[in-house]
Amino acid sequence: MSMPKDFTFTDYKPYDFANRRHIGPSPAEMEEMLKVVGYPSLDALIDDTVPASIRQETPLSWGAPMTEREALDKLRETANRNEKLVSLIGQGYYGTITPPVIQRNILENPAWYTAYTPYQPEISQGRLEALLNYQTMVCDLTGLDVANASLLDEATAAAEAMAMAERVAKSKARAFFVDENCHPQTIALLKTRAEPLGWQLVFGDPFEDLDPAAVFGAIFQYPGTYGHVRDFSDLIAKLHEQGAVAAVAADPLALALLKSPGEMGADIAVGSTQRFGVPVGYGGPHAAYMAVKDAYKRSMPGRLVGVSVDSRGNRAYRLALQTREQHIRREKATSNICTAQVLLAVMASMYAVFHGPEGIKAIAQSVHQKTVRLAMGLEQLGYRVEPDLFFDTITVEVGKLQGIILKAAVAEGVNLRKIGPTKIGISLDERSRPVTLEAVWRAFGGDFNVEAFEPGYRLPEALLRTGEYLAHPIFHMNRAESEMTRYMRRLADRDLALDRAMIPLGSCTMKLNATAEMLPITWPEFSEIHPFAPADQALGYQHLIEDLSEKLCAITGYDAISMQPNSGAQGEYAGLLAIRAYHIANGNAHRDVCLIPTSAHGTNPASANMAGMKVVVVKVSDIGEIDMDDFRAKAEQFSDTLSCCMITYPSTHGVFEENVREVCDVVHRHGGQVYLDGANMNAMVGLSRPGDIGSDVSHLNLHKTFCIPHGGGGPGMGPIGVKAHLVPFLPGHPEADKHDGTVSAAPFGSASILPISWSYCLMMGGEGLTQATKVAILNANYIAARLKGAYDVLYKSAKGRVAHECIIDTRPLAESAGVSVDDIAKRLIDCGFHAPTMSWPVAGTLMIEPTESETKAELDRFCAAMLAIREEARAIEEGGMDRINNPLKNAPHTVEDLVGDWNRPYSREQACFPPGAFRVDKYWSPVNRVDNVYGDRHLVCTCPPIESYAEAAE
Amino acid sequence: MSMPKDFTFTDYKPYDFANRRHIGPSPAEMEEMLKVVGYPSLDALIDDTVPASIRQETPLSWGAPMTEREALDKLRETANRNEKLVSLIGQGYYGTITPPVIQRNILENPAWYTAYTPYQPEISQGRLEALLNYQTMVCDLTGLDVANASLLDEATAAAEAMAMAERVAKSKARAFFVDENCHPQTIALLKTRAEPLGWQLVFGDPFEDLDPAAVFGAIFQYPGTYGHVRDFSDLIAKLHEQGAVAAVAADPLALALLKSPGEMGADIAVGSTQRFGVPVGYGGPHAAYMAVKDAYKRSMPGRLVGVSVDSRGNRAYRLALQTREQHIRREKATSNICTAQVLLAVMASMYAVFHGPEGIKAIAQSVHQKTVRLAMGLEQLGYRVEPDLFFDTITVEVGKLQGIILKAAVAEGVNLRKIGPTKIGISLDERSRPVTLEAVWRAFGGDFNVEAFEPGYRLPEALLRTGEYLAHPIFHMNRAESEMTRYMRRLADRDLALDRAMIPLGSCTMKLNATAEMLPITWPEFSEIHPFAPADQALGYQHLIEDLSEKLCAITGYDAISMQPNSGAQGEYAGLLAIRAYHIANGNAHRDVCLIPTSAHGTNPASANMAGMKVVVVKVSDIGEIDMDDFRAKAEQFSDTLSCCMITYPSTHGVFEENVREVCDVVHRHGGQVYLDGANMNAMVGLSRPGDIGSDVSHLNLHKTFCIPHGGGGPGMGPIGVKAHLVPFLPGHPEADKHDGTVSAAPFGSASILPISWSYCLMMGGEGLTQATKVAILNANYIAARLKGAYDVLYKSAKGRVAHECIIDTRPLAESAGVSVDDIAKRLIDCGFHAPTMSWPVAGTLMIEPTESETKAELDRFCAAMLAIREEARAIEEGGMDRINNPLKNAPHTVEDLVGDWNRPYSREQACFPPGAFRVDKYWSPVNRVDNVYGDRHLVCTCPPIESYAEAAE
Repeated sequence: MSMPKDFTFTDYKPYDFANRRHIGPSPAEMEEMLKVVGYPSLDALIDDTVPASIRQETPLSWGAPMTEREALDKLRETANRNEKLVSLIGQGYYGTITPPVIQRNILENPAWYTAYTPYQPEISQGRLEALLNYQTMVCDLTGLDVANASLLDEATAAAEAMAMAERVAKSKARAFFVDENCHPQTIALLKTRAEPLGWQLVFGDPFEDLDPAAVFGAIFQYPGTYGHVRDFSDLIAKLHEQGAVAAVAADPLALALLKSPGEMGADIAVGSTQRFGVPVGYGGPHAAYMAVKDAYKRSMPGRLVGVSVDSRGNRAYRLALQTREQHIRREKATSNICTAQVLLAVMASMYAVFHGPEGIKAIAQSVHQKTVRLAMGLEQLGYRVEPDLFFDTITVEVGKLQGIILKAAVAEGVNLRKIGPTKIGISLDERSRPVTLEAVWRAFGGDFNVEAFEPGYRLPEALLRTGEYLAHPIFHMNRAESEMTRYMRRLADRDLALDRAMIPLGSCTMKLNATAEMLPITWPEFSEIHPFAPADQALGYQHLIEDLSEKLCAITGYDAISMQPNSGAQGEYAGLLAIRAYHIANGNAHRDVCLIPTSAHGTNPASANMAGMKVVVVKVSDIGEIDMDDFRAKAEQFSDTLSCCMITYPSTHGVFEENVREVCDVVHRHGGQVYLDGANMNAMVGLSRPGDIGSDVSHLNLHKTFCIPHGGGGPGMGPIGVKAHLVPFLPGHPEADKHDGTVSAAPFGSASILPISWSYCLMMGGEGLTQATKVAILNANYIAARLKGAYDVLYKSAKGRVAHECIIDTRPLAESAGVSVDDIAKRLIDCGFHAPTMSWPVAGTLMIEPTESETKAELDRFCAAMLAIREEARAIEEGGMDRINNPLKNAPHTVEDLVGDWNRPYSREQACFPPGAFRVDKYWSPVNRVDNVYGDRHLVCTCPPIESYAEAAE
Repeated sequence: MSMPKDFTFTDYKPYDFANRRHIGPSPAEMEEMLKVVGYPSLDALIDDTVPASIRQETPLSWGAPMTEREALDKLRETANRNEKLVSLIGQGYYGTITPPVIQRNILENPAWYTAYTPYQPEISQGRLEALLNYQTMVCDLTGLDVANASLLDEATAAAEAMAMAERVAKSKARAFFVDENCHPQTIALLKTRAEPLGWQLVFGDPFEDLDPAAVFGAIFQYPGTYGHVRDFSDLIAKLHEQGAVAAVAADPLALALLKSPGEMGADIAVGSTQRFGVPVGYGGPHAAYMAVKDAYKRSMPGRLVGVSVDSRGNRAYRLALQTREQHIRREKATSNICTAQVLLAVMASMYAVFHGPEGIKAIAQSVHQKTVRLAMGLEQLGYRVEPDLFFDTITVEVGKLQGIILKAAVAEGVNLRKIGPTKIGISLDERSRPVTLEAVWRAFGGDFNVEAFEPGYRLPEALLRTGEYLAHPIFHMNRAESEMTRYMRRLADRDLALDRAMIPLGSCTMKLNATAEMLPITWPEFSEIHPFAPADQALGYQHLIEDLSEKLCAITGYDAISMQPNSGAQGEYAGLLAIRAYHIANGNAHRDVCLIPTSAHGTNPASANMAGMKVVVVKVSDIGEIDMDDFRAKAEQFSDTLSCCMITYPSTHGVFEENVREVCDVVHRHGGQVYLDGANMNAMVGLSRPGDIGSDVSHLNLHKTFCIPHGGGGPGMGPIGVKAHLVPFLPGHPEADKHDGTVSAAPFGSASILPISWSYCLMMGGEGLTQATKVAILNANYIAARLKGAYDVLYKSAKGRVAHECIIDTRPLAESAGVSVDDIAKRLIDCGFHAPTMSWPVAGTLMIEPTESETKAELDRFCAAMLAIREEARAIEEGGMDRINNPLKNAPHTVEDLVGDWNRPYSREQACFPPGAFRVDKYWSPVNRVDNVYGDRHLVCTCPPIESYAEAAE
């Protein structure tokens, strides 16, 4: 039958994910926007923006893009290829129960997972409070004074502890002692980290092999990886006598029953809070912790939340002591920590709130009791169980039966740990059930009922914990779910995240984290796989990682990808290590100079420093490009010792530099390698490939370009891509390929968030990804065009275009009206926006990156706000507004302002409803402007006592 | 090894769901509360509250309660027993794709699912807007003027249409014509509904068998259940000539391509919006729609959202024309509709927003095109496909092959529909894929590739849709996910739901809806099972329903449960029908009098009326108890014709009446049956069983007592329990047991939400459920005690106790200070609370039901608010506050009040931060007090034109 008259067939594709859901502007909106920018078509704009010389030749493509449903089906099928056994492997990763109320209201809630790092404290009070709870929990359990707001994983935390020990130790020794009872991945990572810095590692039994005078520090594992629970107090005292620093890697659950590292005198404690409700997830993401004595707080890496006051004197939280951080210290830094694990730290802290000290203690006791029972059964079967005293982990000598028992256990649905050629390790956890124990016994040849064994205790009496922990009222709030739900909602509502407004943070690429991408994360087939489970139980992950790697290779032009680095900075570090290893392998160990332009990300020099390189800074021209004369000169000057250069492309100034190929050529000519920072890949995907331009290695921020949400400050993933000649030097792992160069605790980093990036690639297809890049560029150029006249765009290409972000100059307003970039940022809160990136890479500027996901309406709302702010500044310039008492200086305005007396020279209406602000749906900052100086002067980094809340209320 | 010294073993149970998570007050809090109430122990309070005469003898028990994790494991195992095939059965239930962004941000978001019915419009603006979108969508697609905010399911909607036709028809005929092309379950339900009311049903082909003069109305299905697409315009015109009313049951997706019922002249359209993104879920819940001509809007059943203004003249939404509703009309009502399907209507409306008219049209065209292809293949195989023209459904004559093909299809993973002895029905949907079509062909013996068939069209040209639909801007907003997410978040934030504060609604039991209970709802193994799938594919559901029934029998003392009724009112109706059928079966067809106390729920008399009973009202004494003299007298008077009585226990006055056994005895003595309304079961579970007291039948509101969330006004579930003698008269279903008495479209009502109630029972255990009841009573008595002196509790037992709720008398304040119950309710919004139930069952009172899930802190916050309100009224009484211009009359206060000029005799601080209100986390009402009269006078029940938004903005 022919098509009926008047029946027009629509070509609208409702399930076109790229063009209907991910990319913000609709086709019609794009036309309007192009008119404003002054181009007849998107391709014309792109042709004028991205230099022909760097355009890739073949369009990106891997077949038809999937719909959301197709991608979810594909993910489901892939998940089902993972086999979900009960893993009692331990070794830093334990079964845990994520309370459903936390899963749904934190982990699966866009209000939490789409938030950014809390650099703008006023709009981050919710997660700052949750992180303060986390720090308090860590301080309490470790018995130390100050804890940071999380690190990447336990192994990197241990390496950070070592580096910190080196910084603060009075001892001038160049060696570091490592307890042989540390987890193998910790040992591997310490090796990676120490070697380029020239620190010698001494391994052994601390009670036998430690010479306190020969080391600047030592790290002990507590309980040990094989189960030992030992008191390090005497050793620590001896280390202190020699001016050396003592670190303890401790399991926080064990600390609920055991004497704390602090009580032993430790200077530093590190560990993983994974088992506080965060699924193992094939290795991550989880929050590692670090706590230190008060004296060392300024030397501690990572972010630190502190208590301060706002301009009304009300309590307010914010990041404290930021001057410690890598973006300030740059090449002096021995830590490049940037991404933390905020979302997971929040979960762990909520787990502690959910359970309180009573619950945590009960769980720890129950785990211990089960382990004792397990040991009793094994002993009854005639096995020798080590050690005599333990918490949750035992080691069983089985001789030649090892293979048979491990196999039998798998047949029973249980993974045990292979230790050496004749031993088996078993770690129990809160998920272990009577049937689990019975299955293990069967694997060992026994047929017992759990009830056959009386509960017993095998904790060393001298190490029993005394005294309170988690004493703060927050850990004693009523634990009913209604109360928990409301607490989490209240905190979430204080914060402004992507689920309410665009976050135009230059260099951070805060794009849509689509729900379809997020759903698989909490499927047990992804979240409950142990990172060291036998490979044939992780075939789904294997397929996912291989396919994603292939796609990322196609996108970047590299030959291989390593998924191990679990942050961008970690990726930089791994990439530089690969370059270093390459030079060494070629007999060029002396090549250790790294050229870095002044405009580079702060992590670049820090990573180079950690990789044992000497940073040589290259100038940047007035228009934001690498000063080629200086670059050539430096390359020439260090020709013999040149290891590499680190460049960012498009540049951190938001411009596609024409000379990028030349930069690469120069470096190669002088025997160096090119590290191209992938932070700005969102401007390149589908248009240009680092591997084609001349780069040898890059990291990719999957949490920027590939849709992993920022989680309020982590997780992240920073896999690296390399050209073929660097493949042999990619990170290895003791539990995978046995190679060295380990940079993360788990072989594939934070594997459980990879489904997000994979789904994104599957649903966008090559064409969709390319279109996204183009629209990201359009959006940035649209904002630049809309703000023209009001603000100068600082850097543009010769053709007047910006890449995917634009830097606007607000310094003139400082001069003319006394309006600082901070004032603008805070005023934007009144308008319902997170500020763009402030004063980076140029002080007094704002770097705006809208990403492709923002619609024209949202861009217009933002531009309206920015233009109105310019007009307010103009009113100051022209005398119509006071220079001190004006809406910019007093921003953000809060309900407290409205409720109180109003004697300002502008109206409440002007204050609270500037252009951009929603009327009915206005976001209200929960605090007025936060006083950072006060906070650093009166440093408080744990929950303040309840009395002080009462005072604040008065 | 013995327990170490100082090692105290904790008896804290972190995973005790009942006592740690579900029940609000902690053990320590309960002790404090009991002191306030004046009892030494909880049991002492209960002994004084629940009469010994009605206490159950055996404690409730079914083994150890499960932890959240154990329950989720059990649910997972049960879900896996359901077999998820592709169902092409159609018959009102179709595959659909729930957009992930809607699934996560609506269906899985407590801000939406824990909300109450929007009776307090100020704090319900978000869902009211979503429902207005829904009504607009329905009006547009059906071509009619006014649509309500959803009905229970398509079959009950059809019955409502019939009842409405009877109310409004000018024709005096007593028959109703039913298109034989209606779905079988619709036909079954129409039979159930017509019979007690004495309406004759005429079935047949409308073009052959309809005599317009002989009926008060007719209903046609469009497209028909077997696929026919026919124009009813002429028939409708003829019906109108005779003063009869025409209803069309129409598939909204088909209406995207086809001439609308309105264009055919229909007076009423009904149907299901299930396939707009709501999973089939083994039958529900889904939102049915009803739309009518403007002239009939006041006769339409169900809730209707309308546009009005607030006290500042700003646009505000609220429920319109509430005087039509059953709680006002009582025994005059011919509809007992109370619960709607708000959560599902919101989902369907968001699906329309997500897709817009372009997307809906594209989906409809694609479904049609696939169906044409399917038909072409079948025809090529030599089958006769009916009808010639169709939308998505075809019927194939297969003769004796029927069984073989159906089986072959199942083997291919596809369920088809068995029609009569020789036909097979197939309905395609947006999930149908090329492989689906190919599988169907294989089942029919063909081996084709989809590509072998050219796309074709088989729609009747004369019935092609012309003109626009979904023209309102809301359906043309940018459909990027970032925009959708933010829109849904903004709407959610306007509303106050259980995730932010207690909702102390007497008689509504707004208790915790725990996340662990909610998680399984969206598992595909529960959500994607067709209600008419072969029974052996739903073994998980079968087990769940059987086990839950068993537990509900144990709780109620009944012998059997029917899960069919999908609302409380539907349960009442089904229970009364069972009583009616029982009398008829015993030769007592004349027994038709139903005694109902004046204090009964409004649905009681409405249901009795629908069941063909004569309602005789019984007086209630001053202390809220049934007037036994009047009761005995009425029972005596109607002894010969007594069918039953309907009582609520504990009474709607919140008291355990001592005489309940006597009431039952009296009724039984006079040959009647006892219907005990289960609305207040939350005060009985574990303490007292209706079946033991003398009741014969009850419904249970699973959405009150058994944790199904209210969803902002539905879904609900109202299963009924009966004693053995009534078992034969429980509802039947044409697709299940073939019995009659069908009351819902699906055999087990809204089956997909039953996992909630089941999980609740599993995790609470019998002991936990009993404890919950006790604490519910404690919480109510605690509030009564705390408010003592400020407000009088209207009804108490002889011992001065209330049951699980208490009614406080606010009438004195009306006299002394001119403060109405409405003023108090609105002032509570300022304090951050949803008001208690207003003016029911006694005008000028507030009925407070805290439920067991609220913590002492939350109860105290509420009491602080209530006490402060009393003090404000006292200030008015004493002249310290103005009688007109005071915080009570001006409540709720909004940001608009704060921003504007303030010339009130009280401060902004007093206005906005009364006791109870959070400071930083204050909930702000998005509108000032809503003007209900204005809204009804200027009735607008679809989205206003965009220009009017612009006006409002000015």
